[in-house]
Amino acid sequence: MEQGTAIKRDEESANGDKSPRTDRGRRTLRKLLDAAAIEFGEKGFYEASISGITQRAGVALGTFYTYFDSKDAIFRGLVNDMSEAVKRAAREALTEPMSALEIERRALAAFLRFASEHKEVYRIIDEAEFVDPASYRAHYETTAARIRERLEAGMAAGELRDGLGEAHAWAIMGMNVFLGLRYAIWGSSEWDADEIASLANELLQSGVGKR
Amino acid sequence: MEQGTAIKRDEESANGDKSPRTDRGRRTLRKLLDAAAIEFGEKGFYEASISGITQRAGVALGTFYTYFDSKDAIFRGLVNDMSEAVKRAAREALTEPMSALEIERRALAAFLRFASEHKEVYRIIDEAEFVDPASYRAHYETTAARIRERLEAGMAAGELRDGLGEAHAWAIMGMNVFLGLRYAIWGSSEWDADEIASLANELLQSGVGKR
Repeated sequence: MEQGTAIKRDEESANGDKSPRTDRGRRTLRKLLDAAAIEFGEKGFYEASISGITQRAGVALGTFYTYFDSKDAIFRGLVNDMSEAVKRAAREALTEPMSALEIERRALAAFLRFASEHKEVYRIIDEAEFVDPASYRAHYETTAARIRERLEAGMAAGELRDGLGEAHAWAIMGMNVFLGLRYAIWGSSEWDADEIASLANELLQSGVGKR
Repeated sequence: MEQGTAIKRDEESANGDKSPRTDRGRRTLRKLLDAAAIEFGEKGFYEASISGITQRAGVALGTFYTYFDSKDAIFRGLVNDMSEAVKRAAREALTEPMSALEIERRALAAFLRFASEHKEVYRIIDEAEFVDPASYRAHYETTAARIRERLEAGMAAGELRDGLGEAHAWAIMGMNVFLGLRYAIWGSSEWDADEIASLANELLQSGVGKR
């Protein structure tokens, strides 16, 4: 099922040895990743170029290679960076103690806002399915694992019913991803993140059956 | 956001004028679409070739052009064909009158079975996001519209609570798509379509909140 053009993970390390050690280096890395998000988001992996990224970042072409070995390497770094940013956006919305269902509601609202402000996140993560399948799968597996941890905590606190497991975590992730696609990516300007998150939260709390 | 390589819908018609008029023609078209599913599923759009498709189909290269103008055209035809097949798989599971929730459970179980027997369906529809964005969006919009119709019927019958709308349809579709990804595509051999569909159906019926 893997394309010939997919990144070969054996051939390239996770780029760990190129991590910057100074604040200036970290700022340049940040500039490169932000520029890569725009370049890959607008052009897609195959049409995107390293020179397109360095021009957008305002750094010299040679500087790129201080941080990444190749277009494949920065794409992989970007998927990982976006996966972390999605996680951070949800976490930052959880500032105080709250119920398990309120956590899910706020995490979804934060994700919807993040996606509407970073619409390229869908295209880049989705393209990873073809360009870097391992990163694509890792993104969803770690996201589902986080949701599952929250469900476990909610069950332990007696707020959620027993028996929730992996399938429920994947179901919730799917709801969130498709609500983001429908509203944050394809929506008109009329939708409201809190309203959508509340509708989904009500479904999550008590379902769609007649009460 | 569109790639330079994305199919230009203006330049090519929906291929309607090449529809076969004889049974033999329809059989050949079927062979070409089945072969295209394997070719695009294994190689991806960019690496796939028309000669790869005709070889797998066991038809002459020239025959291809009786049915399709280009690789783009057969890819678009295939996405439409798979979208219809997904719809048919769910519909065929609904053989007798049943409750709104039972309809959702059976439709999901049928989809999970279909996806596990046609694992290429994910890759092909997902690649349409890049190769043929209009078909990608149309697939999800029509799928969500079908779910929404079922929700409307369930509300009208008094089986589902009031106020279910587009967001709920997209949430349910997202659940189904991600359960398919987790189990039908990435799952080991141990999962059971009916068991997963029942877990999802319980979530749908009454949520995850403590009762």
